[in-house]
Amino acid sequence: MENNGDLTIEALAPLIRRRKLSPVELARYLLERISRLQPEINAYLTITADAALAQAAQAEKEISRGHYRGVLHGIPISLKDLFCTRGIRTTAGSKILKRFVPKENAAIVNRLLECGCVFLGKTNLHEFAFGTTNVNPHYGPVRNPWNTERISGGSSGGSAASVVSAQALASFGTDTGGSIRIPSAACGCVGLKPTYGRVPMSGIIPLAGSLDHAGPLSRCVMDAAFLLNAVAEPRLWNTSTARAASEIRRGVKSFRIGIPRQYFFDHIRTDVRKAVLAAIGIFEQLGAKITELNLTGMKETAALASEITGDEAFAYHEKWLKQRPQDYGKDVRLRLEQSGKTTAALYIGAQQKRLAYSERLDRALSRVDILLAPTLPITAPGIEQREIRIGNAVEDIRTALLRLTRPGNLSGLPAISIPCGFSSEELPIGLQLIGRRFDETTLLRAAYGYEQATPWHLAFPPDDPPEAPAAG
Amino acid sequence: MENNGDLTIEALAPLIRRRKLSPVELARYLLERISRLQPEINAYLTITADAALAQAAQAEKEISRGHYRGVLHGIPISLKDLFCTRGIRTTAGSKILKRFVPKENAAIVNRLLECGCVFLGKTNLHEFAFGTTNVNPHYGPVRNPWNTERISGGSSGGSAASVVSAQALASFGTDTGGSIRIPSAACGCVGLKPTYGRVPMSGIIPLAGSLDHAGPLSRCVMDAAFLLNAVAEPRLWNTSTARAASEIRRGVKSFRIGIPRQYFFDHIRTDVRKAVLAAIGIFEQLGAKITELNLTGMKETAALASEITGDEAFAYHEKWLKQRPQDYGKDVRLRLEQSGKTTAALYIGAQQKRLAYSERLDRALSRVDILLAPTLPITAPGIEQREIRIGNAVEDIRTALLRLTRPGNLSGLPAISIPCGFSSEELPIGLQLIGRRFDETTLLRAAYGYEQATPWHLAFPPDDPPEAPAAG
Repeated sequence: MENNGDLTIEALAPLIRRRKLSPVELARYLLERISRLQPEINAYLTITADAALAQAAQAEKEISRGHYRGVLHGIPISLKDLFCTRGIRTTAGSKILKRFVPKENAAIVNRLLECGCVFLGKTNLHEFAFGTTNVNPHYGPVRNPWNTERISGGSSGGSAASVVSAQALASFGTDTGGSIRIPSAACGCVGLKPTYGRVPMSGIIPLAGSLDHAGPLSRCVMDAAFLLNAVAEPRLWNTSTARAASEIRRGVKSFRIGIPRQYFFDHIRTDVRKAVLAAIGIFEQLGAKITELNLTGMKETAALASEITGDEAFAYHEKWLKQRPQDYGKDVRLRLEQSGKTTAALYIGAQQKRLAYSERLDRALSRVDILLAPTLPITAPGIEQREIRIGNAVEDIRTALLRLTRPGNLSGLPAISIPCGFSSEELPIGLQLIGRRFDETTLLRAAYGYEQATPWHLAFPPDDPPEAPAAG
Repeated sequence: MENNGDLTIEALAPLIRRRKLSPVELARYLLERISRLQPEINAYLTITADAALAQAAQAEKEISRGHYRGVLHGIPISLKDLFCTRGIRTTAGSKILKRFVPKENAAIVNRLLECGCVFLGKTNLHEFAFGTTNVNPHYGPVRNPWNTERISGGSSGGSAASVVSAQALASFGTDTGGSIRIPSAACGCVGLKPTYGRVPMSGIIPLAGSLDHAGPLSRCVMDAAFLLNAVAEPRLWNTSTARAASEIRRGVKSFRIGIPRQYFFDHIRTDVRKAVLAAIGIFEQLGAKITELNLTGMKETAALASEITGDEAFAYHEKWLKQRPQDYGKDVRLRLEQSGKTTAALYIGAQQKRLAYSERLDRALSRVDILLAPTLPITAPGIEQREIRIGNAVEDIRTALLRLTRPGNLSGLPAISIPCGFSSEELPIGLQLIGRRFDETTLLRAAYGYEQATPWHLAFPPDDPPEAPAAG
């Protein structure tokens, strides 16, 4: 494992600003890694090398003329292939949209372009984002950089894998039931699902509109903060980036951290439990106050989220499902066919229950600053694996992967997954922090405090540790 | 018409704080007006005189001991009878809930109690808030204080009437299609619908959860700001009330005001058009920049809002509708029976169209600070009136009243109605300003700037001008 400090936006942006690092060289360096690693990891569906180099050259020219746009200027990132990109095919990981070339960019893509980002390509995902394994029947599975026989997790698995294996400095993904946090935990990077409503969703192919969130995947917490702030509307910070960063660096002394023992700590693997309990210990050492919380009624959340996701996904897919059922992968088609048979009143009833549940979480967060839990009850399972044993119980992979992340989607509360250790099999473990509505700053501050006190975010998959790009 | 400067929270709170005005005397003064005006106006369903006097005595005791809670301490207000109040019946204007006594307060009610508010009683509304006239078959119509043969507008008509006829200093209502703004315009007070998600809705009997908003009705803009800030979550201001108030007083010089000519200025009565055009002139004199906007696709909003409201209301009422159809008023029963026959997919499709429309409004508001339009195309119609003529066209009352307010509910954008003049029949006319998402401060600043430059908010209905309560 090597230090990755040099492969973060936080570390490289000052070099770019001071013209010590060429955006073109940086893009070339990452594109070279992509062409080497793509056959093995399969993180990308489309690699936009020429466009990336042109954007990088443009950034370099602007910066050399003294027009520095800010911390994302010249930074090469990847985008989940669910974000519409003008003139660049956007497949949603599907056969149905295999040749879809959008006429407009997603709102987020335009925001990132204004910030001077360089787009390396579009990342592989679970078909139409309707799954958590990223085993894609049309484009092949995304493989976990830590063990290529394991899944990356999904549906933003290509994004997570591209970041973890240094095929991009960061990425943007989407999260409807955990699709940013699940692959971030499984692959070992930072994944941030902002508050529902924080980020404009227009131009992103929907899975379930009332649960869909877009957000960044990155190598460190500060990078996630930079990326979120670039696209947030309402803005996260009204102050300068430097001042906002110093807010996030203020530490967690006297933070009140709530531990929801029920549900979030039931049926989790021993390695995961140990790592998360150790993380609680770190927070205590840092001066945070730990409180156990009594959150009831969480078990219903799985059925509730399934109902809402299924109904909304069906509404979007109904037409294609009738016209071209054979063009869907089997798992997604079955899930869609099982949905959409309900009445408006039943669906609305589910939304009302969701609201009541969401208010319970809001109340819990009126007594603490953040909630702390595992992101996943397990580490990344095998690519062909269907079920997993946790203690004495056997659970199907999909249920297990979604179990602890769905509450963040139902409630719309901001949630982040950060690396918190490794299993005995050398697979990353994810720590999940959940924050107050529209208070991502406090959430990021907690995550940053923990990150800086631990080495986990510095680890690289052992097979191919990248060297830092040459700064001159 | 007399000056009402003395009957605002802004004017009276400093007197209460300095112990120049007794909260008990103030509550008595308003309760006396209530007992005199209630037979004529019918603004209240339940008058809680004893509880109000006890709360006022408690406030007085606290203040005399030096524990001043802030600007709402000792301020007597009314509450729409849709807010659950512990131990006090909450009818929702219905026969079905005629004897319903909640065990818990709505979240907002608790917040207001913490601020030291005094509750005078629960105001009359359209049955289950599912209507705009406030002609209530079970409890009688609320009459417009400017002309008791006219409707108050609804569904928060009792709240508006109680404020305008000085039977409360302010009130809280709810707004699903315009139910705060419509009666505020019809009766001549300030009515603020905050951003969707700004105010906790728990413990408020729902009409249509995805469109329901709670907010204040008041005699002036600053009072609306005080009341909103007391219940907002996320908070409106993190600064002190005085500093926030000075932000709102900063004026509208260089404000960019967008005028959506299409739809919002089609088919409106001549008196209304004149008053609103004059308001635009005032804004120009104050240094604002006026821009005409080209907003298309607005006509669909009526059908869209009807569909969503109907489906969600049906989901809530389904059980009662089967068991006790005869207990509903005819208009509400028919509206409910016409709804709820749709599939989840159709309902979700409507929500998706709504989102796309909402993003169009967000985009329009990225180019201007606020939108300006009439609140209603008409002034308050007669109590038995079914249709209204506007130019050469005849429109039913419900459609006309909802036409210009529904966009604010579909989009969730904050919107305020403020008095902007009188018709030839001496009926108030409402000006509607629509602001950016979660930017109520800018909206209030615009409204305040206009208000301070005009006399309209100072007018009282002529029959019974109140004298200021004795300050000693």
